[in-house]
Amino acid sequence: MADIKVIVAGPRGKMGSEALRMIEKEPAFQLVGCIDRIHDGQKVAEVEGLPKMDALIYTSAEKALGELEADVLIDLTTPEHGYKHTKLALEHGVRPVVGTTGFTEVQMEEITNLAEKKELGVVIAPNFAVGAVLMMQFSKWAAKHFPDVEIIEKHHDQKLDAPSGTAVKTAQLIQEVRESHKQGHTDEKETIDGARGADVDGMKIHSMRLPGLIAHQEVVFGGLGQTLTIKHDSHHRESFMSGVKLAIEKVMELDQLVYGLEHLLD
Amino acid sequence: MADIKVIVAGPRGKMGSEALRMIEKEPAFQLVGCIDRIHDGQKVAEVEGLPKMDALIYTSAEKALGELEADVLIDLTTPEHGYKHTKLALEHGVRPVVGTTGFTEVQMEEITNLAEKKELGVVIAPNFAVGAVLMMQFSKWAAKHFPDVEIIEKHHDQKLDAPSGTAVKTAQLIQEVRESHKQGHTDEKETIDGARGADVDGMKIHSMRLPGLIAHQEVVFGGLGQTLTIKHDSHHRESFMSGVKLAIEKVMELDQLVYGLEHLLD
Amino acid sequence: MADIKVIVAGPRGKMGSEALRMIEKEPAFQLVGCIDRIHDGQKVAEVEGLPKMDALIYTSAEKALGELEADVLIDLTTPEHGYKHTKLALEHGVRPVVGTTGFTEVQMEEITNLAEKKELGVVIAPNFAVGAVLMMQFSKWAAKHFPDVEIIEKHHDQKLDAPSGTAVKTAQLIQEVRESHKQGHTDEKETIDGARGADVDGMKIHSMRLPGLIAHQEVVFGGLGQTLTIKHDSHHRESFMSGVKLAIEKVMELDQLVYGLEHLLD
Amino acid sequence: MADIKVIVAGPRGKMGSEALRMIEKEPAFQLVGCIDRIHDGQKVAEVEGLPKMDALIYTSAEKALGELEADVLIDLTTPEHGYKHTKLALEHGVRPVVGTTGFTEVQMEEITNLAEKKELGVVIAPNFAVGAVLMMQFSKWAAKHFPDVEIIEKHHDQKLDAPSGTAVKTAQLIQEVRESHKQGHTDEKETIDGARGADVDGMKIHSMRLPGLIAHQEVVFGGLGQTLTIKHDSHHRESFMSGVKLAIEKVMELDQLVYGLEHLLD
Repeated sequence: MADIKVIVAGPRGKMGSEALRMIEKEPAFQLVGCIDRIHDGQKVAEVEGLPKMDALIYTSAEKALGELEADVLIDLTTPEHGYKHTKLALEHGVRPVVGTTGFTEVQMEEITNLAEKKELGVVIAPNFAVGAVLMMQFSKWAAKHFPDVEIIEKHHDQKLDAPSGTAVKTAQLIQEVRESHKQGHTDEKETIDGARGADVDGMKIHSMRLPGLIAHQEVVFGGLGQTLTIKHDSHHRESFMSGVKLAIEKVMELDQLVYGLEHLLD
Repeated sequence: MADIKVIVAGPRGKMGSEALRMIEKEPAFQLVGCIDRIHDGQKVAEVEGLPKMDALIYTSAEKALGELEADVLIDLTTPEHGYKHTKLALEHGVRPVVGTTGFTEVQMEEITNLAEKKELGVVIAPNFAVGAVLMMQFSKWAAKHFPDVEIIEKHHDQKLDAPSGTAVKTAQLIQEVRESHKQGHTDEKETIDGARGADVDGMKIHSMRLPGLIAHQEVVFGGLGQTLTIKHDSHHRESFMSGVKLAIEKVMELDQLVYGLEHLLD
Repeated sequence: MADIKVIVAGPRGKMGSEALRMIEKEPAFQLVGCIDRIHDGQKVAEVEGLPKMDALIYTSAEKALGELEADVLIDLTTPEHGYKHTKLALEHGVRPVVGTTGFTEVQMEEITNLAEKKELGVVIAPNFAVGAVLMMQFSKWAAKHFPDVEIIEKHHDQKLDAPSGTAVKTAQLIQEVRESHKQGHTDEKETIDGARGADVDGMKIHSMRLPGLIAHQEVVFGGLGQTLTIKHDSHHRESFMSGVKLAIEKVMELDQLVYGLEHLLD
Repeated sequence: MADIKVIVAGPRGKMGSEALRMIEKEPAFQLVGCIDRIHDGQKVAEVEGLPKMDALIYTSAEKALGELEADVLIDLTTPEHGYKHTKLALEHGVRPVVGTTGFTEVQMEEITNLAEKKELGVVIAPNFAVGAVLMMQFSKWAAKHFPDVEIIEKHHDQKLDAPSGTAVKTAQLIQEVRESHKQGHTDEKETIDGARGADVDGMKIHSMRLPGLIAHQEVVFGGLGQTLTIKHDSHHRESFMSGVKLAIEKVMELDQLVYGLEHLLD
């Protein structure tokens, strides 16, 4: 396979710097440039904390996309910048891979149309962790056959919100296929408030917070005489990079927008 | 939904007696008769250990299928009897649901052709536990994205064989989609023989046997910074009945043979 | 070891009938009689559902303890009867093993004094499941070194109360050794009520209820870079019998009252 | 509490640099100096990768112990240097805390005698991970009541040896209290070699190796109708520091040698 030439927007962020490291290791990928708010004209290698790579940094996305010969733009910035970068990339014949949940419906429609017109692939994904995305897909499938399900998610005690976004998202996906019903005994009662967890359409979500935990989720399905459990344990953000890698490879074969990594995971 | 009229072959076996209990509870199903080696002419209710149901027992499968008006025959006997019953049923316009792994290729072809000619559904399944079948399907899917996988199965210490049939079957399904490779460190060594488990095409299977365990399996997939685990715990053979129930419902909509419950679990 | 001669009070209850089965299998124990509300003068073997044992049933506890030569009385009845049986037994030189939580302080003191005067052992235990009792003892020990802890208990969906008695008891034992503090992030918030579970002195308890579950509890301790988990899975009330057996053996060596199986589990 | 003045030997090693960070955070501890092979006379703060602390580095242990006013020496070097440092420390009235398994019996006896003569505490520990040490102690205790036990340890696939040292050590501790017997069914057979794992005195150990795992161990005890599981998950070497901290505090109250962290974990 010929090299896929990649531009990274947001190279100093947590995800961005991890993306650079992944591209560095991957023989099929080649970093041709970065888009950042600072360090215009410097090499990636000159910025503290980034890998020893020769590609140049541009503060102007327009200039980067105009000057560089690239196949894919990975955008790991903000929804606002991501939207501008995505349009610019498509106009320059570059396929965007964007990690965000923040585009408006109008923006999504505009990008969909532009991709179609240009016959170029676009991948927009709220979550690049292949394991987490599979967990959610399996859960949605299992819920068709096991309508009684509870979720327990476990995170370090520095996390502010409970339940986690992934747990709520999982429950919503299950909700699409599961007939709504209250679980547990009809007459069950909590002798201490909160014991039975958070309720999403009759499903229960429990949030554990302890030092020493990282990021874990179990989806437990119960049926006659059996339980089925789908569990994801994540301990490093490099777990997202297999999803980014997959998206880069797949976007090259697409000629339209795909929203959500699950559609690339046959 | 109109009642589905069911004949059960093998009503005194572990699976058969559980099937009677399931039919008794299910308002959409009606037991119209049983096929057994003994108790000809008696009612199910008269046989010790069976539920209080009025349907008659036949020792002649031919007579049962000839006299009774039935939609589905559930066969939970032996491969030899199952084969005969399946053919007889199809010839009488009754759809067979058969729990077996034992049919020969020639027998399978014959049944396939007969079902096609009669335009009648047939379901043949080696495993009716929906949870176990989903675990295997999810594993096969996950292995496309996580080629490093190990299986640990845990059973009571009265089990003779290790690894379990389900564990081996899971590994074989994974093998169909996973590029063969030896897992673990290239230079890994066992300081005590057997520590790394049984090897199936580079995958490892571990078998735990303890009193107090029943029937459990975990399939663990490892990737960069994350693991994904699919776990099935089974503690009663009633866990098989949701699969039998599903097969009865689906076989009514089929006009050909389907092998394996997984093809009914969309 | 010479046989230990045992009387069982409450032989038809769930625990009582299990106790008979245990005594039947155990060569060191011999059933010499039962105390029950009905079946006076009948043999155990004559009552439906009980094992084939020759010992006689008495409706009068006084008569049973007066006529029978016995070493140990196992009482698995109610607190009210248990209290009377315990005193009667001690007065007849028989050592009581009682499964109850229901004695009042005054009753406990009276039994303590009577046991001391008679120099006879008594074991009173709210819980005979050795595994559950060890889980609680380990948890109490671990909490000294890991003050951040959460409990998740999982039961079938026919259970009415949440959290389970064992979970609350575990939290209370931990409370004895753990400096009270609120766990989780100071500013954590529930975006859906109940996500963080029930609060016992800053510790969180989560209760899962699903068909297919039986009786399970995990106590999770979190510390810097690590977690320690103690888990008990119980699927049959025969799990209580190892504790009853232990209590019978130990009560023979005691000359005073012991409350709680934990004090017999060195 | 007055500050405990600490010298660290081996400050640039994995454990040593973690120890410096722990001391920096802990208000009750004060770093007064380091012993290292290089950087004589430099401040800790001047060495790359070490915390911003003012204490001086000595290449001569004798000079360090002679000049510095210290309460405790933490030695995280090699057995050879550790032995010399331990003797020197005791002769200068400083209490040693040593992380090693490598002292000979003769050396141990010599240190025991010297500590006794000087009436000074010494702590020597092969493992400072409090969670792992508790797991082993709980396992030893549980094995008295549940003689059927298997161990599964899970590590990243860069680990060379199987089973892990901790798993073997756990089995050996259990062996001290468990009557030797072969587990599993008498007639059990492996249809694929290695399925039943490594055998230590009839106990089975299973070693899982996958990318995405870090360091995990489960000890599973099986009894009638129940299982009891003790699980330790470790993902960062800072997990060792709670044990080092504990040892520093406890060694101040001791007047003799203690071998093994478990004796400090009441």
